[in-house]
Amino acid sequence: MKNPILIPELRDLLKKKKFKVLKSFMEESHPKESAEYLALMNPDEIWRLLKLVDIFHRVDIFVYLDIDVQVKLVTSSMRKNVTELLQELSSDKRADLFQHLEKDVADRLMLYLPIPDRADILKLTSYREETAGSIMTTDYATLTESDTVEAAVRKIRKTAPSRETIYYIYVIDDVGKLIGFVSLEKIILSQPRQKIKNIMKKDIIYAFTDDDQENTANLIEEYDLIALPIIDRSERLVGIITYDDAIDIIREEHTEDMEKLMAISGGVEEKPYLEVPSYVHFRKRAFWVVILAVFGLFTGLIIESFQDTLKTLLILTFYMPLLNAAGGNTGSQSATVVLRSLTLNELHPRDLVKVIKKEFLISSMLALCLGLMTFARVYLFSHTGIDPRFTLVDIAMVIAVALSLQVVWSTIFGGIIPIIATRLKVDPALVSSPLLATVVDMGGVIIYFTAAKLMLGI
Amino acid sequence: MKNPILIPELRDLLKKKKFKVLKSFMEESHPKESAEYLALMNPDEIWRLLKLVDIFHRVDIFVYLDIDVQVKLVTSSMRKNVTELLQELSSDKRADLFQHLEKDVADRLMLYLPIPDRADILKLTSYREETAGSIMTTDYATLTESDTVEAAVRKIRKTAPSRETIYYIYVIDDVGKLIGFVSLEKIILSQPRQKIKNIMKKDIIYAFTDDDQENTANLIEEYDLIALPIIDRSERLVGIITYDDAIDIIREEHTEDMEKLMAISGGVEEKPYLEVPSYVHFRKRAFWVVILAVFGLFTGLIIESFQDTLKTLLILTFYMPLLNAAGGNTGSQSATVVLRSLTLNELHPRDLVKVIKKEFLISSMLALCLGLMTFARVYLFSHTGIDPRFTLVDIAMVIAVALSLQVVWSTIFGGIIPIIATRLKVDPALVSSPLLATVVDMGGVIIYFTAAKLMLGI
Repeated sequence: MKNPILIPELRDLLKKKKFKVLKSFMEESHPKESAEYLALMNPDEIWRLLKLVDIFHRVDIFVYLDIDVQVKLVTSSMRKNVTELLQELSSDKRADLFQHLEKDVADRLMLYLPIPDRADILKLTSYREETAGSIMTTDYATLTESDTVEAAVRKIRKTAPSRETIYYIYVIDDVGKLIGFVSLEKIILSQPRQKIKNIMKKDIIYAFTDDDQENTANLIEEYDLIALPIIDRSERLVGIITYDDAIDIIREEHTEDMEKLMAISGGVEEKPYLEVPSYVHFRKRAFWVVILAVFGLFTGLIIESFQDTLKTLLILTFYMPLLNAAGGNTGSQSATVVLRSLTLNELHPRDLVKVIKKEFLISSMLALCLGLMTFARVYLFSHTGIDPRFTLVDIAMVIAVALSLQVVWSTIFGGIIPIIATRLKVDPALVSSPLLATVVDMGGVIIYFTAAKLMLGI
Repeated sequence: MKNPILIPELRDLLKKKKFKVLKSFMEESHPKESAEYLALMNPDEIWRLLKLVDIFHRVDIFVYLDIDVQVKLVTSSMRKNVTELLQELSSDKRADLFQHLEKDVADRLMLYLPIPDRADILKLTSYREETAGSIMTTDYATLTESDTVEAAVRKIRKTAPSRETIYYIYVIDDVGKLIGFVSLEKIILSQPRQKIKNIMKKDIIYAFTDDDQENTANLIEEYDLIALPIIDRSERLVGIITYDDAIDIIREEHTEDMEKLMAISGGVEEKPYLEVPSYVHFRKRAFWVVILAVFGLFTGLIIESFQDTLKTLLILTFYMPLLNAAGGNTGSQSATVVLRSLTLNELHPRDLVKVIKKEFLISSMLALCLGLMTFARVYLFSHTGIDPRFTLVDIAMVIAVALSLQVVWSTIFGGIIPIIATRLKVDPALVSSPLLATVVDMGGVIIYFTAAKLMLGI
């Protein structure tokens, strides 16, 4: 955010009607920076400043404002200002803005627009959330295959200002079917008389309107695209998604992955942390916390069933937190690594056996480390909670062995769970780290007391 | 990956010298798809296929091959093939390839190249890892401010094929200082006689060679750039980073964040999971697992100091896993949410008090839920492990109160730790979920037994 010290100066300039200074200030700053200054002023002041620059620059600044500010601006100003702005706004940003307006405001503003624009908004807002259709823009540049390069350049020049990008241009036939693609680079490099048909590429990467937005971001990433064309079921071009949208999607999915991993349910909030009401946070977190608490109670039942062993050897209680931590941590680690490899397509669900072998090796090394360390701790520093029937070596051995087994079981379990989830077509990220920790803990308690019973004969 | 059934057919075509069919197959497929087919063949076959298409297409395919395959290809072929390829390869990809070559192979291939290219490789491989310099390419397009639009188009046409992008063109002065920027769109839209000086933008977003790569990705994301110019300390333009590199960086940082969150130390591996040796995985995971085990032993010591309370009320042991799970889970949740908000700049470290207030509210709601649930469980279903001196209501109350306090403390602690880490200039992602779970667990045990002592007077 900008240093707010400049705001009084800007206000002062505005009051003194120093419009020339303000105009050149806004024209020389990056639209994003102008937007950061404007965000600190009231809607009336923002409008007065926005109107100093031409409509294209105005729209550039407007789109960098928070959606809340955008809503206030279009709700509060005169018809002329708003209409001009809405007509220049890119179709995806405009549809997004309409989705954030109060019903009656949206209805009123809709009337300001020509019929095709209204239809465009209705169409774009009708796609299901998180689909390609819901985030695409309809401001793409097109050509026909019979255009010459010369004619193409003329067309592009005429329509460029209202297009999201002119670096990728799509070739459509007379019913709007997508048949080819040509980059502006290719056009610049080709002879003026050449036909688009002869320079266009036909191996087009595309997605459908109802494809998941994450898949479109992946295509843009894998093929290093500037834009991805979106077609409907009759193969007609209906929109494009640009690389900057892909980056936003990747960020959003990242947040979602982290939240799932930490057992937070529901979608990602659009608003910043401090603006989301506390009860919404509560609702998103309570779901898994309550389920995991039920698991915790089960683990308690298992311990309860071993209470005779516990009474005999209270020392076992002292090492329960260690067993628990080691199991949860190693399990979460292997789950994270495998999950990430699956997401990045480095690992295929059919590699299950390879994963088990590898995690067995890794966990054996971890188990050896922790086992030796624990044996030393128990053997060297334990003085209390020991029944005189057993030697310290016996007890240290039981605890070290149980810990090692727990580490191996947790690591392998953590590694295979994301693969099994994928095979069962369940989102593997849902198998969160807390869930995993809770489940391996149940297994750990059984291992622990069974080892004690078998090895010490109690 | 492609269906390997096609591979025998390709091999067959190659054996039968059906070069025309193969050539048009490669020309009509997307370079990425061609690369996926080639990856399944041996270096000799790959070279024979690559040489069917022109050098530009050949390079397009080559860059989609895994770095291991690239290394094999340039190590195994004749001087002429390799030289042509290395000269056309973009400078960042070429520098990356050289960093993966054996020392003697790199030295030999270096001799194939003209002096300026050698200098370029040495320069690019000299930047510290994870800096802007280490990932930038030197294949950018430039103009001078006295160029006319007409002359600019001629220049661009001449140099375009060897440039990473021509959509953003940088304006430099006679000592190479970056003084402006113009997009190809702007050039297309301007009159042929106009001077670049009059259409270029001077408010350039840039980064320095020694800036962190993550910052460059953030700039590209925030300002929706196709490329970001990189300058040295004397403000000379020395490279660019393109949007597709930014996407790769964001993905890499995402993996790193997840691994840190799960207490996996060290950087991100370049190789896929199955190819990284097991002992490397072991080393990366062991560090935190061992440290956390030491914490676990401390928690054990705390329990040991309360063993008299435990002997009197063995029932307390049965609810330790629940207390533990609830504390770890709620703490991880708040830490994740706050960490993510800090990363996305939605939250400022000075908002500490606001975060505490908010997390107090959320955790009170969670505590009420879990407290009531646990009270009901203890009161309704406990039959064993209870000293006759106490009523079931007393004991249920102790456990429910301790659990509620644990949830509130863990949630607030989880929420403030990333903020405190940021203030202390420690990477907040290092405060991993397992570390947090282990620390709140220590606090939880103290809360638990202290509550029992105070409320029951034992």
